[in-house]
Amino acid sequence: MVTWFSRKRTRVEAPKLRSRSEVLATTKVDLVEFTPELMEFLGRAAYVQLTLFENLGRALAMAPTTSAKAALSRAAELSMVKHRGLAGVIEKSGGSVADVMEPYATGIDGFQRVTLGSDWFETIVTCYLTAGFLDDFFVRLAAGLPPASATQVIGVLSQDSGEALLAEELRSAMEANPRLASRLAMWGRRLVGDTMLLARQSLTYSENHKSDEARIEPVFTELIAAHTRRMDSLGLTA
Amino acid sequence: MVTWFSRKRTRVEAPKLRSRSEVLATTKVDLVEFTPELMEFLGRAAYVQLTLFENLGRALAMAPTTSAKAALSRAAELSMVKHRGLAGVIEKSGGSVADVMEPYATGIDGFQRVTLGSDWFETIVTCYLTAGFLDDFFVRLAAGLPPASATQVIGVLSQDSGEALLAEELRSAMEANPRLASRLAMWGRRLVGDTMLLARQSLTYSENHKSDEARIEPVFTELIAAHTRRMDSLGLTA
Repeated sequence: MVTWFSRKRTRVEAPKLRSRSEVLATTKVDLVEFTPELMEFLGRAAYVQLTLFENLGRALAMAPTTSAKAALSRAAELSMVKHRGLAGVIEKSGGSVADVMEPYATGIDGFQRVTLGSDWFETIVTCYLTAGFLDDFFVRLAAGLPPASATQVIGVLSQDSGEALLAEELRSAMEANPRLASRLAMWGRRLVGDTMLLARQSLTYSENHKSDEARIEPVFTELIAAHTRRMDSLGLTA
Repeated sequence: MVTWFSRKRTRVEAPKLRSRSEVLATTKVDLVEFTPELMEFLGRAAYVQLTLFENLGRALAMAPTTSAKAALSRAAELSMVKHRGLAGVIEKSGGSVADVMEPYATGIDGFQRVTLGSDWFETIVTCYLTAGFLDDFFVRLAAGLPPASATQVIGVLSQDSGEALLAEELRSAMEANPRLASRLAMWGRRLVGDTMLLARQSLTYSENHKSDEARIEPVFTELIAAHTRRMDSLGLTA
């Protein structure tokens, strides 16, 4: 319990620059007692962002129209800004970006493989839903970092990730082809399991699994509620 | 001839910010009389940059090590900065990025397909050689744009594109596997033809094909010499 309280004290509020941060600042549950050491956190979060960026790159290369390409190139840029922001924090902390990410690469590559999607539409759903979920998750987990790092990391992760651009592409695709919706809804429901698993693997657990689960559960309930809102905003049933 | 001189007057010197620009500023041959209208130029150049970025994204996703991923993510960021820089010029000129690129997409997609490469190493050679060639080419062609646009475009295209990062990856791959060099040399020689073809398709010709060819030839001789230097710097025979 001593450890619990001492970590609790290092909590910082998310900067109130963006709408997503405003939501988070009023959130009562976070993951401060599960935050790994700084370099582990940064290695995992930076590699996750690189993976999200790669997914957008793949979606960009497969885009069926020049207009979709233009939208995705903007989203890819925003995603790259996040990865580079975290890479910058690693470098300022004296680490090599590649070395710090290396231990977590294989696990996150596995997540990437199972969430790839079977076509362009599913890949876009993956980009939209997993980026939203994982950014939310890592912002909550970052709250347990040393305060200066927490502020930097939360600042990076709370930036716009082009969610609206992706949602717009998906909405117009489903308008043109209404049968797409049920397939994409199924894909969206499937994604949440794999994404939660990746998030859980990023937590540093205590010895007491039962109490850990009790603390983690309300956070994941909120993350899943946000996932459901993201699906709702596309008109998909979660 | 009147047209020739009046366009010639609009020539601007490349800004002397970077080493590549310094080389270009001393170059005597350019392509000012073949420069298309501003929006055509921007549409072609922006879509080419997007294609170069996509190629880096593909190389990033296929990268065999985390360290290669880290280097490629930096190169992809620099490449994206160029595309977004040109997209910004389109938007400031009142155009929609997607609409302005659209007419040139199919032709440039064809170039992308034939220059894809059969594995990661060939794709990196493509990223390294075609980006170098096409940036050089579009800088020379940009000299014929209205002066303010020319300055902006040349500023964007003369930025670092991560060439050194790609060369470093290729050099260490060839050190680890010396047999790679002859295959990559062959690939590099093949690329120059397809890249020149794309460049030529971006020129606005006059009625006089013979005199056009006489003017174009020395420029392409210089572009090919730069291509050869890029191959030399990897230890490949062009």
